[in-house]
Amino acid sequence: MLAEFDLIRRYFMSSQEAATSNGVTLGCGDDATLLVPTAGQHLAVSVDTSVVNVHFPREAPAFAVGHRALAVALSDLAAMGAVSRWCLMALTFDQHQFADDDAAHAWLADYARGFHALSQQHATTLAGGDVTSGELAIGVTVMGEVPVGEALTRSSAQPGDLIAVTGALGGGAGGLALWNKGERDLAHPLLRRYLLPEPRLAAGVALRGLATAAMDISDGLMADLAHLREASQVGAEISLEALPLAEGLEGMLGRKAALKAALSGGDDYELLVTLRADDIAKAQQRLASLGLTLTVIGHCCETLGVSASDQSDLSGYVSGYAGWQHFSGEAP
Amino acid sequence: MLAEFDLIRRYFMSSQEAATSNGVTLGCGDDATLLVPTAGQHLAVSVDTSVVNVHFPREAPAFAVGHRALAVALSDLAAMGAVSRWCLMALTFDQHQFADDDAAHAWLADYARGFHALSQQHATTLAGGDVTSGELAIGVTVMGEVPVGEALTRSSAQPGDLIAVTGALGGGAGGLALWNKGERDLAHPLLRRYLLPEPRLAAGVALRGLATAAMDISDGLMADLAHLREASQVGAEISLEALPLAEGLEGMLGRKAALKAALSGGDDYELLVTLRADDIAKAQQRLASLGLTLTVIGHCCETLGVSASDQSDLSGYVSGYAGWQHFSGEAP
Repeated sequence: MLAEFDLIRRYFMSSQEAATSNGVTLGCGDDATLLVPTAGQHLAVSVDTSVVNVHFPREAPAFAVGHRALAVALSDLAAMGAVSRWCLMALTFDQHQFADDDAAHAWLADYARGFHALSQQHATTLAGGDVTSGELAIGVTVMGEVPVGEALTRSSAQPGDLIAVTGALGGGAGGLALWNKGERDLAHPLLRRYLLPEPRLAAGVALRGLATAAMDISDGLMADLAHLREASQVGAEISLEALPLAEGLEGMLGRKAALKAALSGGDDYELLVTLRADDIAKAQQRLASLGLTLTVIGHCCETLGVSASDQSDLSGYVSGYAGWQHFSGEAP
Repeated sequence: MLAEFDLIRRYFMSSQEAATSNGVTLGCGDDATLLVPTAGQHLAVSVDTSVVNVHFPREAPAFAVGHRALAVALSDLAAMGAVSRWCLMALTFDQHQFADDDAAHAWLADYARGFHALSQQHATTLAGGDVTSGELAIGVTVMGEVPVGEALTRSSAQPGDLIAVTGALGGGAGGLALWNKGERDLAHPLLRRYLLPEPRLAAGVALRGLATAAMDISDGLMADLAHLREASQVGAEISLEALPLAEGLEGMLGRKAALKAALSGGDDYELLVTLRADDIAKAQQRLASLGLTLTVIGHCCETLGVSASDQSDLSGYVSGYAGWQHFSGEAP
């Protein structure tokens, strides 16, 4: 039987030195962790739960499970333009799923490696956690900071603003399709997009002062665009031809299914932003310096709803598209 | 099928007015929530997950499930002497467990009532959340504040300090025993102790400047005392006669089982504190004004380990006691 306290100490406690340098006055091991927020900053907080066989396959590599659970939570901070600082991890873990304690420890070590590698990449200190017994699930609370008045929100897009996305779309759904076909090589670009998504934190910071609204694409472009439209009370017209498709997606799925993956597949964790036309070149420059593209896919308009420049095609291969035109912000 | 977004809006979004008055600049509904921490305070954070059939019975009243999930998390803030301000709730919810959508909605409404009643009692704004599909579990992240330098920790008990506990012990285990016998009346004091524990937040604040160390009793007195002893590098001698037993516990279980419940039952969520002998009267006065007792149950000593004034008895009715004398901080 693995003891909770041992597990936390062995796999999840940050080094005291690293923690102290990131504003952790009292780290893991007490009832709560004491943090030192920065004066003049808002604290941005969010929680995301990843459940086995809902958000990731049971057979997914433990490294990817750890990476992904943190990545999807960090993606929410990216969408706010926040700098990530701390996280808390609540792991619910079923050790009886493993042949023996050694197998459980091997999984945990690999999981912790994936989690820590990403947390270090984004200077995010694991400031606390909890290990409980039950169906595998990971709840990650992330805490970041953004200067007062500079946060990106969903609610301030204006008619006339351009709509743009970072990176490429459809990779999450394409990777899942690959996984379901038996592909297990994490070096495959599409599988990486699904299992090892990269939260766009640097892009979020770079877009401060330029994006009029922002959110991350987790449920799929159309569903998330609906949330943004509702929050901002604008309509949107998008161009299917303009959608940046993930590398290899069209070749694998064909054009129609690739577009569907980009529109409604979800799990892309790119940023969906709106900007004034005057600011697009500057925003693209800033993101280019991060090695990231920013592609204009449409613009906001007065009429609530969504239309597409090639609507007659769209209705043919995206089921339920007619409904989207009347979307007023419902969840899909 | 219940939609996540609707669920959050219907049951869990705090009123904008209440949230704004508690430092929530941007509330639920965006990618992250923006909070305004207080200058000069440390931010105390902790997360606790409650899993069905591990931490509470599947048939527990939904009101109690909501209350309890928040209470056990707040108890960690109480142990730090922090004032609770915000929480995030990650609900994993299996709607297929219910006969129909109406039954699921009834459960959720009752659950939300329990959660909100306690959050309001402790001026804790629900600042974000997540609803996912899976085996019922609730992860609660709590955030509180404590003036710099005033937090209570586990690590500063000194030999000679008295050891004391708030309230009464054994009620958690006694309530569970009652539940297992079929008792379902939440008005029963022992069942309340188990299903509706009261986090000792006011007591934690009142003990600032007096307690030399503190933690909450969640795993059971002996197990939690072991954590405190390890963190402070002290030994402890406790008196079994001095243990304050929960009302009705001895009558229900008999003396031996009642003591065992108090020593190792867990789920009491009282505070375990150490104090200098000179400060005990003042601490008891402060807690009395909150309607709470503070009972001295022993003292810290130089020799690492635990002994009891009536050890010969103890070894007879608490299994594994011999092992405890050599405890060096392992989880039970």
